[in-house]
Amino acid sequence: MKLKDIGEFGFIEKISQGCLIRPDHIIKAIGDDAAAFYTDSGLVSLVTTDLLVERVHFLRDATTGFNLGYKSMAVNLSDIAAMGGIAREAFVSIAIPKDCSTDFLEDVYRGIKDLALEFNVNILGGDTTLSMVDLIINISVTGSVRMEELLLRNAAKRGDIIFSTGFVGDSRAGLYLIQNNIPTDSKELKALFNSHILPRPFLHEGRFLAAQDGVHAAIDVSDGLSSDIGHIAKESNVGVHLFTEKIPVSKNLIYFCKQYNFNPVKFALAGGEDYTLLCTISPDKSVEVTRKYLKTFNNPLYPIGEITDPGKMVIIDSSGRVKEFKPKGWDHFKLK
Amino acid sequence: MKLKDIGEFGFIEKISQGCLIRPDHIIKAIGDDAAAFYTDSGLVSLVTTDLLVERVHFLRDATTGFNLGYKSMAVNLSDIAAMGGIAREAFVSIAIPKDCSTDFLEDVYRGIKDLALEFNVNILGGDTTLSMVDLIINISVTGSVRMEELLLRNAAKRGDIIFSTGFVGDSRAGLYLIQNNIPTDSKELKALFNSHILPRPFLHEGRFLAAQDGVHAAIDVSDGLSSDIGHIAKESNVGVHLFTEKIPVSKNLIYFCKQYNFNPVKFALAGGEDYTLLCTISPDKSVEVTRKYLKTFNNPLYPIGEITDPGKMVIIDSSGRVKEFKPKGWDHFKLK
Repeated sequence: MKLKDIGEFGFIEKISQGCLIRPDHIIKAIGDDAAAFYTDSGLVSLVTTDLLVERVHFLRDATTGFNLGYKSMAVNLSDIAAMGGIAREAFVSIAIPKDCSTDFLEDVYRGIKDLALEFNVNILGGDTTLSMVDLIINISVTGSVRMEELLLRNAAKRGDIIFSTGFVGDSRAGLYLIQNNIPTDSKELKALFNSHILPRPFLHEGRFLAAQDGVHAAIDVSDGLSSDIGHIAKESNVGVHLFTEKIPVSKNLIYFCKQYNFNPVKFALAGGEDYTLLCTISPDKSVEVTRKYLKTFNNPLYPIGEITDPGKMVIIDSSGRVKEFKPKGWDHFKLK
Repeated sequence: MKLKDIGEFGFIEKISQGCLIRPDHIIKAIGDDAAAFYTDSGLVSLVTTDLLVERVHFLRDATTGFNLGYKSMAVNLSDIAAMGGIAREAFVSIAIPKDCSTDFLEDVYRGIKDLALEFNVNILGGDTTLSMVDLIINISVTGSVRMEELLLRNAAKRGDIIFSTGFVGDSRAGLYLIQNNIPTDSKELKALFNSHILPRPFLHEGRFLAAQDGVHAAIDVSDGLSSDIGHIAKESNVGVHLFTEKIPVSKNLIYFCKQYNFNPVKFALAGGEDYTLLCTISPDKSVEVTRKYLKTFNNPLYPIGEITDPGKMVIIDSSGRVKEFKPKGWDHFKLK
């Protein structure tokens, strides 16, 4: 079915199904000039927004609607996770080229709703419009958090241990496979592909970390490890030591790097779109927090380095060699 | 200057100037994973979002950056106005083609900030990314309103008088001038052009109406008078009588329609992007409300019809002829 057969309002009616997941305190969802809802008084409100553009962030022919919708939502939820928040309401704007079928679009909303349902997030509105060439999706997500649990980039302190909630570099390897039309014919390559296509937002993990004593700064790895730890360094006015041996690289990434002759650590540093959380934890609390984290999630918090006096960001290898690194990740505009 | 010279983060630093207009209760503005702020406890939160796409909503060569930014913000503020709310925080996502200069983009933000400053709205974040061909702007705006003052589309009651806060049809005439490359060489045509390019959000008027006894439903005229009053009719499950003679058409529109042989009322009904507010007011309160409105804004509230029993929407001319009309305004996808 084509959009011209059902029109804008027909399309909105179709996609409105299954959007209100948490009806409490919602006064008006889709269907007025704005959504209207109560927030918990005394909490800090969070808002994040991410814009995905065809041929920049995805190729319509190389993805499914579901995967596209899922990822559009995941990247927003990841930002709320990195603030230590609970995700609350989502608003989906979509600009649709004429050659895009309603089946594909409904599949996009299926992907969005899948994560919305899992993380108890309402879809309360948005905008639908035409696009000349490229499919465009902008999602805004609100969230909330108690002030004393808010995780900011500028709160890292000298001596803090830096942790990652998961592997880094896998998503970049998955992108390499896609960009080079490499078939994902092994379970290793398939896993890398999935890391790029269906990233999981660390929302529960972000909430857990926010609630622990001694957790200071946090960010999600969207631009790349070196770039995102660089944001913490800049905002907190601190230096960074990373340890080559400690960067969590997956067996899948090592398999891939052997096959295509890459350095896994470089992939991990300059990659992007991992959507793991980086956080810094006071050294006297880090043992306790990592122990509880492992018990809660059955996954480790990976220590990758430490926060130092203001100055450089360096990476130190197993033989003690020190090398400076610069934030090097995704910048949409800058010449590399 | 080109974007590739300063990069994404350089661009964000440039546009971040002048964004924080109301710093009270703002914990984190631009520069973290999400913006973080307190909301007034006990108020209803509002969120609206609008997506503007090059070659669909605007032609980059035919507009200035300022006008484009101004309108992108105005359409969102108008939605908050139509809910009776105060606009609070704005989030600007922008996808930028490589041939777009930073001068043009800074001009876009000048237009956004101009309205932000006038209406005391913070710009707290957003997303910047690349686009292959078209410039894309998505703005989300939050607002708040007391529950008892919230204006919804579904609250119209039989017997209510329907009002408009301003002229309808001017913006559609302005669009006609632009689409047909007609020079705006008279003050009348210039005014129509401006109605389309620099629409004013009726935020103060929306707040005023929300605070009055007897004001029931409201909507802003974005899709067109017939379409938008149709939304009220459908959501409130009522019928509508409009009166041809009462539709507020400007002298400029009459001048234009004479020159190009159009029917001004048809233009007014099927137009769009007027961003006046339509509201319905209980008949026993309407005299009082219109008197106070005139005194406050030095502009009339125009009565254009009334809410009837569920059924048709009709327009009645001066000789009493009754004609049914259907919602007919902007639908981006449907075949006309």
